[in-house]
Amino acid sequence: MEIKFIEKGVCAPIGFKANGIHCGIRRNKAKSDLALIVSDTPASAAAVYTQNLVKGAPIIVTKSNIADGKAQAIICNSGNANTCNADGVYIAESMCALAAGKLNISPKDVIVASTGVIGQPLPLAPIASGMEKLVEGLGNNSRLAAEAIMTTDTIVKEVAVEFEIDGRICRMGGIAKGSGMIHPNMATMLAFLTTDAAITPELLQEALSEDVKCTYNMISVDGDTSTNDMAAILANGRAGNKIISDKGTNYKTFVKALRKVNTELCKKIAADGEGATKLITCSVVNAKDAESARKVAKSVITSNLLKAAMFGADANWGRVLCAIGYSGADVDISAIDVSFVSPAGRVAVCKNGAGVPFSEELAKEILNEKEIVISVNLNGGSYGADAWGCDLTYDYVKINGDYRT
Amino acid sequence: MEIKFIEKGVCAPIGFKANGIHCGIRRNKAKSDLALIVSDTPASAAAVYTQNLVKGAPIIVTKSNIADGKAQAIICNSGNANTCNADGVYIAESMCALAAGKLNISPKDVIVASTGVIGQPLPLAPIASGMEKLVEGLGNNSRLAAEAIMTTDTIVKEVAVEFEIDGRICRMGGIAKGSGMIHPNMATMLAFLTTDAAITPELLQEALSEDVKCTYNMISVDGDTSTNDMAAILANGRAGNKIISDKGTNYKTFVKALRKVNTELCKKIAADGEGATKLITCSVVNAKDAESARKVAKSVITSNLLKAAMFGADANWGRVLCAIGYSGADVDISAIDVSFVSPAGRVAVCKNGAGVPFSEELAKEILNEKEIVISVNLNGGSYGADAWGCDLTYDYVKINGDYRT
Repeated sequence: MEIKFIEKGVCAPIGFKANGIHCGIRRNKAKSDLALIVSDTPASAAAVYTQNLVKGAPIIVTKSNIADGKAQAIICNSGNANTCNADGVYIAESMCALAAGKLNISPKDVIVASTGVIGQPLPLAPIASGMEKLVEGLGNNSRLAAEAIMTTDTIVKEVAVEFEIDGRICRMGGIAKGSGMIHPNMATMLAFLTTDAAITPELLQEALSEDVKCTYNMISVDGDTSTNDMAAILANGRAGNKIISDKGTNYKTFVKALRKVNTELCKKIAADGEGATKLITCSVVNAKDAESARKVAKSVITSNLLKAAMFGADANWGRVLCAIGYSGADVDISAIDVSFVSPAGRVAVCKNGAGVPFSEELAKEILNEKEIVISVNLNGGSYGADAWGCDLTYDYVKINGDYRT
Repeated sequence: MEIKFIEKGVCAPIGFKANGIHCGIRRNKAKSDLALIVSDTPASAAAVYTQNLVKGAPIIVTKSNIADGKAQAIICNSGNANTCNADGVYIAESMCALAAGKLNISPKDVIVASTGVIGQPLPLAPIASGMEKLVEGLGNNSRLAAEAIMTTDTIVKEVAVEFEIDGRICRMGGIAKGSGMIHPNMATMLAFLTTDAAITPELLQEALSEDVKCTYNMISVDGDTSTNDMAAILANGRAGNKIISDKGTNYKTFVKALRKVNTELCKKIAADGEGATKLITCSVVNAKDAESARKVAKSVITSNLLKAAMFGADANWGRVLCAIGYSGADVDISAIDVSFVSPAGRVAVCKNGAGVPFSEELAKEILNEKEIVISVNLNGGSYGADAWGCDLTYDYVKINGDYRT
């Protein structure tokens, strides 16, 4: 059975409910700010976190809470990162306790996350007073949860897939938020996944840690690695498959489903980068190893100059080569071919590291599309990688010129 | 004797002449595009170059030409980088030969550089036809040379100092250009220095290589390391000092003069970053070692988010801490103090890694100035470093959205 997309986001897997409300962390009542995802039964849990030395307090608390490989709920607020505050850990632990109290589970089985401005105290009062409404509204509300974790995001990021393990239909769902301070390192901004497949906590963690190297770690909006990046997954086993406890066929199927969900969320995050008008994918082939392929792809989509050129639909391929040259990857520049590809066609602009004549009109048409692929053939091996980013626009500057007020 | 600023740029030292003309590489006749700097007598020569794997052809030719530690002239065009072109080395060598022919020196004594668009063939014809006029106009024309190497630069970057070695007055001058693709790695965009001090080629190279770690390598406009970065220096010994051949007092004085010239050019480059409205200096103190100090300072001024906040005069110090956290430097986040400083005053915004109350009005006044210092005290040692950058503005996007056309 193929892995296929289905509806309902994090509520697609059996036994998961979600909700999102406005509790008052944000002044704007039209924007919800508190999300909850709950499994009816205890679940295997795994997470990856930012590598930034400045870590949000919720990351410290979550790490401690899932050290036993188990969790049952995820609580997350937007509007405030709960980072660089003297009492941050106390606040994050209190969020867990408030949710656990209403859910009648242990506070140690709650994953907690926060996103928003750094260095302003996160008030507990609105969270405490909103918790009853949040829990009472739990249901098939993945979308409400996805909305409540959004900051400057302009589109809701939700996905779910169905796959088969051991003759059993399993489901996996996810929600995520971007959309600035996006240059994840071993994790992403926020992504919360659910699955009803049964898998041991150890393999769940390994699958997630491996997957982010090719998914969340391959996105960049602005080169800034956030302090609060987190991708977390709950696996409650309600699908009824025999628990995955070795790296056989079933693990491989699970990993494929995970890749599909995370890749889809990555594209949504990159396409909705702050101020972005275009999704830029750099697709690298024929690298000498996987690490080189990833370095090259990520360097290209991170280049401010390339991103500005994409905004202007300017086929300035010299900037692609420049970014490959400083990527740190071991490549033979004189072997590189570059093309620009989109629904409007394909144009080769560089062969063997030097320019080739091409139609500027066709290039402009191709680069005026909403989704552009920069295709890089290193002609030096057999490994590949994709990285996702966006164009650099006036609106990025506008959004970030006065974020706090 | 103090090192003091004087006039005349690269023509301040005895025995140096310069010129700049429009030869026709650019269509716009109002913008000059070919520069020449010449010493009357052979000089010690040293240079540092980009670490980008993609290197402009002029860099390959210059490296070869100054392998013997000697040179007498510098030829440089703007409007075309002569990079990623199949016949680039031939073109660069021909530029040297054309200049050498008119100057009656060896082509092997010419330093060559190019700056502009990558991957478009550089035509020799305008350079050949303009060479006579260029050489005939040689004189006290440092400013014309500085103008001719400009690309998207909006201000001319020229400096000169006077210092004393061994009882002899010596002079050092420099010109440079920015202003995009600026994130030098072991060198800068283009900086050409002259001095009449006598110094061996070996010590000249060592002084320059050491200096760039604290000067050109500490600038960033957009995080993109160019393919054509080069800083080169000619020392013709005409001041008559006993040649500097060991690392005694005279070498130290020379190094101080070099630091002063290069620091001044760095500030000019950063302040004139593409689209910039403000010079941002990150001044780090009390780091555990010099490398940590440099990493922290550079990471802060490279952050897109911080740069956008500076454009908007938003005292978003969380972004400063975030950039320190992903800098790769070994620091204790909970010990960090941050202040914003400008001619309008000083405001402390973060103590011991957490926010402190401050006047938003004062912060806004401070950040509305043209020159802003982000003062970071790591409270973890005794080393310091400065890095220079600029704000990220609508105009950066505009300039780079359609650079080629």
